[in-house]
Amino acid sequence: MSRLTLALDVMGGDIGPRITIPASLKALDDDPMLSLLLFGDSRQIQPELDKASDKISPNIRERLVIRHVSHTIENSQSVTDALRHSKGTSMRLAIEAVQCGEAQGCASGGNTGALMGLAKVILQPLKGIQRPALVSVLPTMDGNHSVMLDLGANIDCDAENLYQFALMGAIFAENRLNLVFPRVALLNIGVEAIKGYKSIREASEMIKKNTALNYVGFIEGNYLLNGVADVIVSDGFAGNVALKTLEGAAQNVIGLLKGRSRNDLLKPLFGWLMKILFRESYQRLRSINPEQYNGASLIGLTSVVVKSHGSANINAFTNAIKDAALQVRQQIPQKILDGLNK
Amino acid sequence: MSRLTLALDVMGGDIGPRITIPASLKALDDDPMLSLLLFGDSRQIQPELDKASDKISPNIRERLVIRHVSHTIENSQSVTDALRHSKGTSMRLAIEAVQCGEAQGCASGGNTGALMGLAKVILQPLKGIQRPALVSVLPTMDGNHSVMLDLGANIDCDAENLYQFALMGAIFAENRLNLVFPRVALLNIGVEAIKGYKSIREASEMIKKNTALNYVGFIEGNYLLNGVADVIVSDGFAGNVALKTLEGAAQNVIGLLKGRSRNDLLKPLFGWLMKILFRESYQRLRSINPEQYNGASLIGLTSVVVKSHGSANINAFTNAIKDAALQVRQQIPQKILDGLNK
Repeated sequence: MSRLTLALDVMGGDIGPRITIPASLKALDDDPMLSLLLFGDSRQIQPELDKASDKISPNIRERLVIRHVSHTIENSQSVTDALRHSKGTSMRLAIEAVQCGEAQGCASGGNTGALMGLAKVILQPLKGIQRPALVSVLPTMDGNHSVMLDLGANIDCDAENLYQFALMGAIFAENRLNLVFPRVALLNIGVEAIKGYKSIREASEMIKKNTALNYVGFIEGNYLLNGVADVIVSDGFAGNVALKTLEGAAQNVIGLLKGRSRNDLLKPLFGWLMKILFRESYQRLRSINPEQYNGASLIGLTSVVVKSHGSANINAFTNAIKDAALQVRQQIPQKILDGLNK
Repeated sequence: MSRLTLALDVMGGDIGPRITIPASLKALDDDPMLSLLLFGDSRQIQPELDKASDKISPNIRERLVIRHVSHTIENSQSVTDALRHSKGTSMRLAIEAVQCGEAQGCASGGNTGALMGLAKVILQPLKGIQRPALVSVLPTMDGNHSVMLDLGANIDCDAENLYQFALMGAIFAENRLNLVFPRVALLNIGVEAIKGYKSIREASEMIKKNTALNYVGFIEGNYLLNGVADVIVSDGFAGNVALKTLEGAAQNVIGLLKGRSRNDLLKPLFGWLMKILFRESYQRLRSINPEQYNGASLIGLTSVVVKSHGSANINAFTNAIKDAALQVRQQIPQKILDGLNK
């Protein structure tokens, strides 16, 4: 593994440093080639470091740089307002650290619209890309994975936007999932050619014409986890609704299985049986849980930008950092650019 | 229970009479006050009746009228094309039977757009309603239910449409779920006031101003099953994606739990434990399965129109028929009209 530095907005997310600092320490412990630049309020960061002081080896401490910042972007700010007052915020400084080459990628759990807006202005979209998109890897019931985009960065999308998402998603899937000629599908409310928005039907025609894409047609919400497509393309509104619906369903089911039993004495026996009978299935179900699987990425930009769930816990934010590190090492932005120019 | 007649389009759905005829016989057997007018191809209907002849008592036979129709509307037809060539089709004739008073409600598993278009033209929206909507009852994890609309009848919705869905949904929930002052939420991609489409934000303001509605704000996809709202309002595209995503997740989980065990010898023990530990929870999970819970309704029309899933099996189509009968007996259209005029 190569040495690399990531810039983190440690103030982003619903909880901030109480989550992001322990997660940063965990990521540094797990990846000895990783360095982190932490942007945030040192009055909130230092207590977290003090709490964990017995776990911070000198080796970890020297790969950790804190940049004190007193301003943050709030989740409740509109994108326009957030961008106007972004100067000197933890999110903006983290992105600027990537721009000036101090870091090779960044991660934040903050305001998605602001992150997208700032990343577009500061890091710039790749040549030819109209709109970067939010992409994530979904586990499928057959034990494989799909990628899905856009997940909320662009709520209104025209056919050209959706077509570009298909291109970027296919390249992302090739590299991240190690697939040859990944199957691309468009999320729609029916599989017949006449269903859905005009933009979706037009995008369908555009994707069909590009022989570099392995287009398999429309996909409906009930097949998202069934492994029938490797790349699922959608506008950001429907994509976000679908992803959150999946996550909610998975969390509810795990809650049911873990929690509300009627007879506590039988629970250990049940747990043991569950493990034997359904080991792989249960793992698969757990993997839909956003805690296990956190970190969407903004793709179509010149550098790696990972967006953590706002509600991420320590494990989840650690996974977002690891995801950013992996994408930097895989050179995903360069590969998307190469793919577009083919 | 009162005596009533329903008109069925038995050609609608992916399979047609092989599903709809056994379902009709089951519904007649279960409800001695129900009569059915079946519109469809008698060459396909008769063999199904012959197959079941030993189960058809004289009492059932006399509550069953077959109207031979050779034309049907296909799922792949565009709405415009379907409406233009709708004359004499099973779907149109079933709706016309309601218009002329031969039946008090109708059900079809056919083309949703065509069903909505024909119902709007022939049965007319209630006074003041711009667009009827597709509504369904969802089970929630706490053992209760929510209603959700629109589920696919109107893919592009403005603020006024969404506002009317909220009004109709609240009245539907009051009557069907027997609730007082049901909590209304708008499906969005975040709970902050600045999230989502302009139409959603405007609808939010309109609903807030109507003190007859118990508005609780935005709801995200991951809370759809959590019982935080009794009425979930959405445009038809996102609503359809969310519903199908939920159904797919539930079916996958049930598949996991039922099916793919690694050790068949332990399965009976597991099943027994499952039953003891999670009886209610498991039932709740099963109830999200579209087979258990089929039949969305077009509301905002002068009469009851139920849309079954195209992929409904016999039990599911039986449930759609029962749903239509219940709504007729509950006088849902009249109650919506009364509620709107309050």
